Amino acid sequence: MASFRTVKGFRDFFPEECAMRNYIFETWRSVARRYGFVEYEAPVVESTDLYRKKSGDEITSQLFCFHDKADREVSLRPEVTPSLARMATTRHRDFKKPLKWFQIGSCFRYEEPQEGRTREFIQFNADILGDASSGTDAELIALSIDVMLAFGIKAEDFAIRLSNRQIWTQYLEERQVPAEHSATFLQIVDKIERAKPDETACKLANIGLSLEDVRAFMAAADENHPAFAALRADLTARGLWQYVRIDASIVRGLAYYTGTVFEVFDLKHGLRAVAGGGRYDKLCALMSDGSVDMPAAGFAMGDVVLGILLSKTPSAQFAITEYLNAQQGVDAYVVVADEAQRCHALAAVQALRGAGVRVDFSMAAQKVGKQFQAAENQKARFALVFGAEFPEVQVKNLISREQTLVQNEALVATVLEALKHPAIGPLIA
Amino acid sequence: MASFRTVKGFRDFFPEECAMRNYIFETWRSVARRYGFVEYEAPVVESTDLYRKKSGDEITSQLFCFHDKADREVSLRPEVTPSLARMATTRHRDFKKPLKWFQIGSCFRYEEPQEGRTREFIQFNADILGDASSGTDAELIALSIDVMLAFGIKAEDFAIRLSNRQIWTQYLEERQVPAEHSATFLQIVDKIERAKPDETACKLANIGLSLEDVRAFMAAADENHPAFAALRADLTARGLWQYVRIDASIVRGLAYYTGTVFEVFDLKHGLRAVAGGGRYDKLCALMSDGSVDMPAAGFAMGDVVLGILLSKTPSAQFAITEYLNAQQGVDAYVVVADEAQRCHALAAVQALRGAGVRVDFSMAAQKVGKQFQAAENQKARFALVFGAEFPEVQVKNLISREQTLVQNEALVATVLEALKHPAIGPLIA
Repeated sequence: MASFRTVKGFRDFFPEECAMRNYIFETWRSVARRYGFVEYEAPVVESTDLYRKKSGDEITSQLFCFHDKADREVSLRPEVTPSLARMATTRHRDFKKPLKWFQIGSCFRYEEPQEGRTREFIQFNADILGDASSGTDAELIALSIDVMLAFGIKAEDFAIRLSNRQIWTQYLEERQVPAEHSATFLQIVDKIERAKPDETACKLANIGLSLEDVRAFMAAADENHPAFAALRADLTARGLWQYVRIDASIVRGLAYYTGTVFEVFDLKHGLRAVAGGGRYDKLCALMSDGSVDMPAAGFAMGDVVLGILLSKTPSAQFAITEYLNAQQGVDAYVVVADEAQRCHALAAVQALRGAGVRVDFSMAAQKVGKQFQAAENQKARFALVFGAEFPEVQVKNLISREQTLVQNEALVATVLEALKHPAIGPLIA
Repeated sequence: MASFRTVKGFRDFFPEECAMRNYIFETWRSVARRYGFVEYEAPVVESTDLYRKKSGDEITSQLFCFHDKADREVSLRPEVTPSLARMATTRHRDFKKPLKWFQIGSCFRYEEPQEGRTREFIQFNADILGDASSGTDAELIALSIDVMLAFGIKAEDFAIRLSNRQIWTQYLEERQVPAEHSATFLQIVDKIERAKPDETACKLANIGLSLEDVRAFMAAADENHPAFAALRADLTARGLWQYVRIDASIVRGLAYYTGTVFEVFDLKHGLRAVAGGGRYDKLCALMSDGSVDMPAAGFAMGDVVLGILLSKTPSAQFAITEYLNAQQGVDAYVVVADEAQRCHALAAVQALRGAGVRVDFSMAAQKVGKQFQAAENQKARFALVFGAEFPEVQVKNLISREQTLVQNEALVATVLEALKHPAIGPLIA
């Protein structure tokens, strides 16, 4: 029998990858909190009907859906917004509007794995419910920009592609295209950059439009379009308009968005969108069968494309290294040079940890050389050697190589004091 | 159509519950790091065979198992240890032994929900691989104790129930019970406190033993038993032996544990075990078909019973309140008293957040009274009022009610300075 592997499209997070994941989580979390967002979490399993309600029957082809043992139709969540709408509409009276909520957790899609796409991925979701103002859209776009900047991704590395569904609604009205063609039309626009011009022109002709006219309108839709005026004023005041590019080809989830739509994308590597979102004012009413009508806007950022972008962005590396250095390893390694002193060493381990010091030691009897090697592997700043000198303990700075003898009873205070001084610590290899 | 609900046994984490969850996560994480453990994560979905291999076919009755669209037999993980064994054996050459690894994440069991038991629950797993010493067992038990203490759960509230599989192996050998009865016997011991004495006696008689003899042996198995000598010396040196009670009825997962077994349980409320674990030296060899033989020990602590215990333990409340106060709300709320100043207000919001200050404001135009109300709801320490006085900004301390006018250009520095002083902040209601 072959050894076990991960299921196709799923990932192991060994300690190094897990530390990187935690770095991403903490960055998302800290920027969201600066923006006054509060964290929530939804179940990983929801009824399949929840996703059908939002996206129609076709969605099930991309779902990890199954029947549980009581024959309930359930799915691993492909996204969190339907759960958010369920939660927020169920208890909307309990919270002051607007709700500024964020979430971080795994989602699952049954899609063919490829670069930037896994079957289990982690999303950061930020949404504002109960405020229809364009200031809300600006707040979300600003958050997405500040998240990128917090990762050390700079103006030359990324941009926001911005559009608004309304400009196409207006376009269709002006050309007297019947409303029932609206979805078809948006599908055509969504694919306009990738599809063959001939085919696109043919599809447009079917609903009475010409490719030239659509192209001309797209080219003319710039930041002076009135649909962007309020957003532009807001983001300009924040000094963030420089990150925005108007792009009328941005459409996103078809039946879903109602106004502003945007994507965060990298400028150098042609990756998939790092994040995307917009205004979806009708979802809460849809999910609550009309009982709670609450305007809403939000965006989601995945960890997979972001991770690729971080690995390709030199200016992002410094913060990562700093984080990993701070998180990994221990402060002190207790070396038992004389097994007769193990009891005293254990008492010191306990006292140091109790004082908040990260301490490791060899749980089994080991040669002293091996213990020092382990201390180095663990990137310890100090080795604390319990040997024949006890009750004196040798404190050895593993970076400067200085060493000194300390009375055991003063050990915790000495280590705490020494740790206050910034060390030129051993860098992560 | 009725509104959507969570699937049976699954939980929503609204912001307050999510903050509590994060408090539990951070406490687990910080104590584990003090002990020199590093974090990993495994996939939520694994092949069902992984769990069959460890636990036999019966396990599938408790699994959320299904066939994916390519007919793979997969399961939502019911526990993380099989994934850990898979990961650690696959890449065992890449890591120095011993591995001290911890993990925090959701697990899933198809069991009837009841107090202390949900279908999706979160586990903290701590394991040490590659070290067979009793010092490893002591390290894990010490970690479980320090985690409880870190939550403010005190000596009078909890204890460790400790046993060792070896004492029963030795017992059976001394009474010449054939090895093939060992599993049956342990099952009987596992249920000895709950089953009817008559039935237990009958079952024991079938394998040539008497209930009286088993009971007498259990009563005699105290801390002086040689199986506990090394553990006792170690934990005594750490000052932690006081938390331990020898309890020979502790058996735990049948085919799995090979030596030390222990549970963390509360002393006042009769809850299910808060955590449990032990030594499982044969699992890595089993999961790698004998190719990697690595001793191992570990324990898991769930969030559900722990959460109930925290809610019932007064001494645990202070730390929770302190955490929630620090995490929730914002530092400053920007009030736009004059819409003509919104641009300046937005610039200030951006500058303050850029300096790390948590700031909220009303994204839509609002009456000043409503904005101050929102500032209170958000537990802001300061309101920063942009009105006709601009470029002077009114800084209002919402706790002391003091207020002062500050030049806009000095605003960030003023707020940063003011936040340095500990405030008697508004407590969470």
